[in-house]
Amino acid sequence: MIAGIIGATGYAGAELTRLLSRHSEVKKLVLSSVSFEGQKIEDIYPGFLERISGTLLKAEDVIAASDVVFSALPHAVGEKFAALCMEKGIHYIDLSADFRFDDDEAVYSAWYGKPYQFPECHKKSIYGLPELNRKKIKELSAKEPVIIGNPGCYPTGASLGIFPAIAKKLAGSDPIIINAVTGISGGGREPSQVFHYCECADSISPYKVASHRHSPEIMRNLAAMVKTIDFNATAPKIIFTPHLAPINRGILSTIYIPLSDQYRIKRESSITGVMPTGVMPPSKETENKTSEIRELYADFYKGEPFVRVLPSGLTAATNRVRQSNFCDISVHVDINTGVLIIITAIDNMVKGAAGQAVQNMNIIFGFDEKTGLENIPILF
Amino acid sequence: MIAGIIGATGYAGAELTRLLSRHSEVKKLVLSSVSFEGQKIEDIYPGFLERISGTLLKAEDVIAASDVVFSALPHAVGEKFAALCMEKGIHYIDLSADFRFDDDEAVYSAWYGKPYQFPECHKKSIYGLPELNRKKIKELSAKEPVIIGNPGCYPTGASLGIFPAIAKKLAGSDPIIINAVTGISGGGREPSQVFHYCECADSISPYKVASHRHSPEIMRNLAAMVKTIDFNATAPKIIFTPHLAPINRGILSTIYIPLSDQYRIKRESSITGVMPTGVMPPSKETENKTSEIRELYADFYKGEPFVRVLPSGLTAATNRVRQSNFCDISVHVDINTGVLIIITAIDNMVKGAAGQAVQNMNIIFGFDEKTGLENIPILF
Amino acid sequence: MIAGIIGATGYAGAELTRLLSRHSEVKKLVLSSVSFEGQKIEDIYPGFLERISGTLLKAEDVIAASDVVFSALPHAVGEKFAALCMEKGIHYIDLSADFRFDDDEAVYSAWYGKPYQFPECHKKSIYGLPELNRKKIKELSAKEPVIIGNPGCYPTGASLGIFPAIAKKLAGSDPIIINAVTGISGGGREPSQVFHYCECADSISPYKVASHRHSPEIMRNLAAMVKTIDFNATAPKIIFTPHLAPINRGILSTIYIPLSDQYRIKRESSITGVMPTGVMPPSKETENKTSEIRELYADFYKGEPFVRVLPSGLTAATNRVRQSNFCDISVHVDINTGVLIIITAIDNMVKGAAGQAVQNMNIIFGFDEKTGLENIPILF
Amino acid sequence: MIAGIIGATGYAGAELTRLLSRHSEVKKLVLSSVSFEGQKIEDIYPGFLERISGTLLKAEDVIAASDVVFSALPHAVGEKFAALCMEKGIHYIDLSADFRFDDDEAVYSAWYGKPYQFPECHKKSIYGLPELNRKKIKELSAKEPVIIGNPGCYPTGASLGIFPAIAKKLAGSDPIIINAVTGISGGGREPSQVFHYCECADSISPYKVASHRHSPEIMRNLAAMVKTIDFNATAPKIIFTPHLAPINRGILSTIYIPLSDQYRIKRESSITGVMPTGVMPPSKETENKTSEIRELYADFYKGEPFVRVLPSGLTAATNRVRQSNFCDISVHVDINTGVLIIITAIDNMVKGAAGQAVQNMNIIFGFDEKTGLENIPILF
Repeated sequence: MIAGIIGATGYAGAELTRLLSRHSEVKKLVLSSVSFEGQKIEDIYPGFLERISGTLLKAEDVIAASDVVFSALPHAVGEKFAALCMEKGIHYIDLSADFRFDDDEAVYSAWYGKPYQFPECHKKSIYGLPELNRKKIKELSAKEPVIIGNPGCYPTGASLGIFPAIAKKLAGSDPIIINAVTGISGGGREPSQVFHYCECADSISPYKVASHRHSPEIMRNLAAMVKTIDFNATAPKIIFTPHLAPINRGILSTIYIPLSDQYRIKRESSITGVMPTGVMPPSKETENKTSEIRELYADFYKGEPFVRVLPSGLTAATNRVRQSNFCDISVHVDINTGVLIIITAIDNMVKGAAGQAVQNMNIIFGFDEKTGLENIPILF
Repeated sequence: MIAGIIGATGYAGAELTRLLSRHSEVKKLVLSSVSFEGQKIEDIYPGFLERISGTLLKAEDVIAASDVVFSALPHAVGEKFAALCMEKGIHYIDLSADFRFDDDEAVYSAWYGKPYQFPECHKKSIYGLPELNRKKIKELSAKEPVIIGNPGCYPTGASLGIFPAIAKKLAGSDPIIINAVTGISGGGREPSQVFHYCECADSISPYKVASHRHSPEIMRNLAAMVKTIDFNATAPKIIFTPHLAPINRGILSTIYIPLSDQYRIKRESSITGVMPTGVMPPSKETENKTSEIRELYADFYKGEPFVRVLPSGLTAATNRVRQSNFCDISVHVDINTGVLIIITAIDNMVKGAAGQAVQNMNIIFGFDEKTGLENIPILF
Repeated sequence: MIAGIIGATGYAGAELTRLLSRHSEVKKLVLSSVSFEGQKIEDIYPGFLERISGTLLKAEDVIAASDVVFSALPHAVGEKFAALCMEKGIHYIDLSADFRFDDDEAVYSAWYGKPYQFPECHKKSIYGLPELNRKKIKELSAKEPVIIGNPGCYPTGASLGIFPAIAKKLAGSDPIIINAVTGISGGGREPSQVFHYCECADSISPYKVASHRHSPEIMRNLAAMVKTIDFNATAPKIIFTPHLAPINRGILSTIYIPLSDQYRIKRESSITGVMPTGVMPPSKETENKTSEIRELYADFYKGEPFVRVLPSGLTAATNRVRQSNFCDISVHVDINTGVLIIITAIDNMVKGAAGQAVQNMNIIFGFDEKTGLENIPILF
Repeated sequence: MIAGIIGATGYAGAELTRLLSRHSEVKKLVLSSVSFEGQKIEDIYPGFLERISGTLLKAEDVIAASDVVFSALPHAVGEKFAALCMEKGIHYIDLSADFRFDDDEAVYSAWYGKPYQFPECHKKSIYGLPELNRKKIKELSAKEPVIIGNPGCYPTGASLGIFPAIAKKLAGSDPIIINAVTGISGGGREPSQVFHYCECADSISPYKVASHRHSPEIMRNLAAMVKTIDFNATAPKIIFTPHLAPINRGILSTIYIPLSDQYRIKRESSITGVMPTGVMPPSKETENKTSEIRELYADFYKGEPFVRVLPSGLTAATNRVRQSNFCDISVHVDINTGVLIIITAIDNMVKGAAGQAVQNMNIIFGFDEKTGLENIPILF
């Protein structure tokens, strides 16, 4: 199979290039870049020397030469390439936000500032989160060429942490709060003040507080999961606060989900003076409740090749998933307040971008889903 | 004035040593260290060479020679020195947790694993958060020697972020969620696996999720603030999740406070299909509400020398307060859910430890509160 | 084939575990650890969960179960295991310094502070730098079980940078100066003050200036290369200065080699006033001389699977080889002084330790030398 | 005194702003910026809020309002402001390279690519390295307004490490090799690919090998020092190799100086086989020779307020001088090769830029040289 990558020189594109160059089913890679057309990929990424080589072509030439096309362009510039692929009859896997909203143009345009350019393409797009849509991806792509809207990095880590709470009816009242910390590679390869070393190397900075455009994507995912349980129910509201931290890779999401009455421990709100007695170190009761819920999470993800519900005693951390396609999930309960705390960790470049795109390709073409994604997490 | 420091070779002790060595009212510093007794401070911290010099004495000798004593020992080992100071009739400022719980021995011993050793000392201790207890510190210390329980790093950043919400009746239902990220210096100078460079240098790791012993300290602070409004009201419950990040200094606290009905915008919960219309980019309405609440925060901290309520457009970040005694606060509102998001940033070594201790000394002795704490934040 | 690893829980051992677990010729891995005997490797490195699993055995049990044994123990504790393997008749690849000095016990004991314990083992050991000893490794191991003294991290990067200068008679007068910078993982997994995050995270620190025990290892390598040209010549003297820098992985060696008369450009030492005219920006003359020498380097390493002599315009850097088994070499000439400046970059954990050990195994067993070592360098 | 800063928003300008805002002799600061004219300095550096405030003016307006002017502009754009100051009769301290070459326009223009624009200004400029030119700065500035060419960061660390070797006749044959590592702030505030976090955060990268324009500046300094000993002698040749490392601040220079015959230990070049016996661990002989030379260094810098010749056992490191105006020097000898190894550490933003500029101001105006520069190094 020949795979094509449009936008191969950005960070996500380069990661895709690395992953696909070692994918046992991909016999050849063809690459394109707007900024570096005519140059060689190994001149842009000299680490590739003697392992990956290829002249950067025009996008159209990549499409013409490929059996499947990945796009790692920024949003709002690649729809026409999707249209071209549909025309040619090959699958298109898009890492930008352009195809993550199906035909809900209103939400997309409100957050991304432009209307759909090829509306018909959006009718055959599928949101490519395998843990949500694996069956749909398999079935539709078997019939006709599809467009995969590869999920955003934050929505991947957040949604995977919340899905079991919805499916297992653990989630009570909203809002669900998602407090996420990302590594700097999430900002891409383009230099800017905010990603200049001295400005971010020794700081934690929140940004786009409660106004990041991954919010609607997360909510749509939760809504989709809600629908699998009760078609008429509405999705929980969320609050999403992203932070920037000086790590190269990784997203850690700390998620607060108020438990439904069924899972909440009823306790007398015994108060001594101004201090609730609840403020005591965690007890056996906490441990039991946590185990119970951890089991439900583990059950939900049974058989998933890339989701690990961590055993008791472990807390998700970004250096446990680095360079792998894993999403780690740790389960915690605050009994005093009846809140479930879910922590998820992904590598934003892999499960949050290029790895998940390869996973989608594997599903579409019927390869073992782990092909090319066997990389074992590396502590440092 | 002669100032003494017990435990001068830990990170907080060394920071105190630096700050006090340039404090215009401190004529002499005497230092002690258990681990390095008999050696010189500049041998342990060679950066001090030609600027600070001093032989590390026994704690008792430091007390004998000083007009005021700071202790930067770990918790549970320094109470006897407090007792000695009381005996001698000099003020004692303790950076450990030992004197942060007044006479509430039950909570202290539940979380710190030991009973009070000198209960009488705890009767004359004051929790040293100037923004809460300035008046009390001034008045009591004017009458007799006092023991200051210098606040924990996390509780400082969390409490300062929540106080105005309580005092201005912004806070509605609990729990209040505090999601905090700390730099590695918070772990102290002692080597350990978790703070070994390769284990933490490129990772975000939550720890002690909903079970950190700064939780009861935060709740006590909130309870104290609640009492200033309504003596019979109870404190809000909290959830506190600390995370470790690869920065040297700084604590960023992202705090979620459900707004009281009065401040919540009533909106029709208009739902189209499964997607709440609320998931739209922030609007003018958000901006107005945020400004209104920011004003209340600014008003609450009017005149405070070390709290900065940031103007519109700025979000608190740790590199804006580095090496200063500032606590920066930015105010955000999520109108869709009616939640106030407060972000605070402090330098854990300064406002979170040594700087706040100096601030307490300044208050006790009637110096200008900024003396020795004029350091301007340094971006890197 | 079953491969055994003694000392699997240190950083080099864990890296070996990762590499071998994905090596197509290794059907099974058996692991041992002194510190964690009886525990599971995935409990020590939770990133391995669901990918690598194995109980940590006694070293003797690993030897009994294996077809080849790797040791990643510290120096001076593993000789007996080498002896056991010789007894059993299987190859032993040792990542410590114990078998890097052949039968030159005097130098070993002067620098490592102990005599050989199993002298007969040292008679069948081979220094495992493939670019120097590939033929010898192949031939001896075909006849009998061998012990490979896997090279030190610094000596690998330094020797590979100097070999062509010796072989091509570029090197003139000594000393050759090797100024090297290493990442923190070189210090191993054991916590200590010097590798405590806050002590090394934002600093460059030289250590063991002109007194590091990798010096004699480097000199022995250069002597071995000299002997291939002229058996009676003596090795050049060296100066070796290691530095610690806040990166996780990588060694950068900047090597200064005075050129032999043949390669030195003769120039009139025209001096105007106090300023040598030589202090002018590099000219075409520099470029030509550099190209000439780069060709000699490229020729020397022709066909080597893991040495890349970088093309003009590129300078070796650690993030170009990260996580790969490559040694990158860039060639520079300072015409004014007639000094060849060679810069080499390796990943200290891979080509500097575990990767090179796997490379040695591949050579011994006749596998393609790149098997299991195809990892493409990763920028971050 | 009113001090003006042109180019206040770059990193060096902002550091100057911080330092001068707390300088006891500076009553007022006026600031300019080309990029941000009309804005406020605290909007560009929000860390300054409530401590430093000032509207960014035109450079001409700053000059008109000031008693002394600092320029932190890039090279080649500020000569006209120097001319304006000379016209107005006030001192001008320039942090760019424009006034570091006196009237040697040939060397300047060869390396910086442009001729002098105001040649007469260069006749009254002084190279502002106090340890070299303190007397000259004092005497000339007492007579007339002067222009200070504030030294480059690398030349400061390199020259201070080599001066005593020249003055005490320790230096033998050249070249002297300077292997330097800088923090990222040396690259300034302007974003670019090379300083983009992900590209430099976990790598060591040499650049401009033997072709950096600080080379001629270093050689000029050495030539000037040589002249103080023997007016007709020529300066030693140097090789200068800069490297980039992921630290915010600091330059570490590792300098290799072949000792003159007088200081070299004569030893029989006894060789056993291919291995020089010299490759033995350092002995008492090394220690003695090192002490002897350290004494000469200490003597040379006796009374210097900002140069610390470190005692035996300490090696210079950047985190020992951070945020201070110190230059630390450690002395090492490699007896086997007769090479003196000098290691110097400075903070590139302070002694390497803004701090040294303030030091020059203090000298010119007759203030205590340490005024405003008392900051004690901070480990992290």
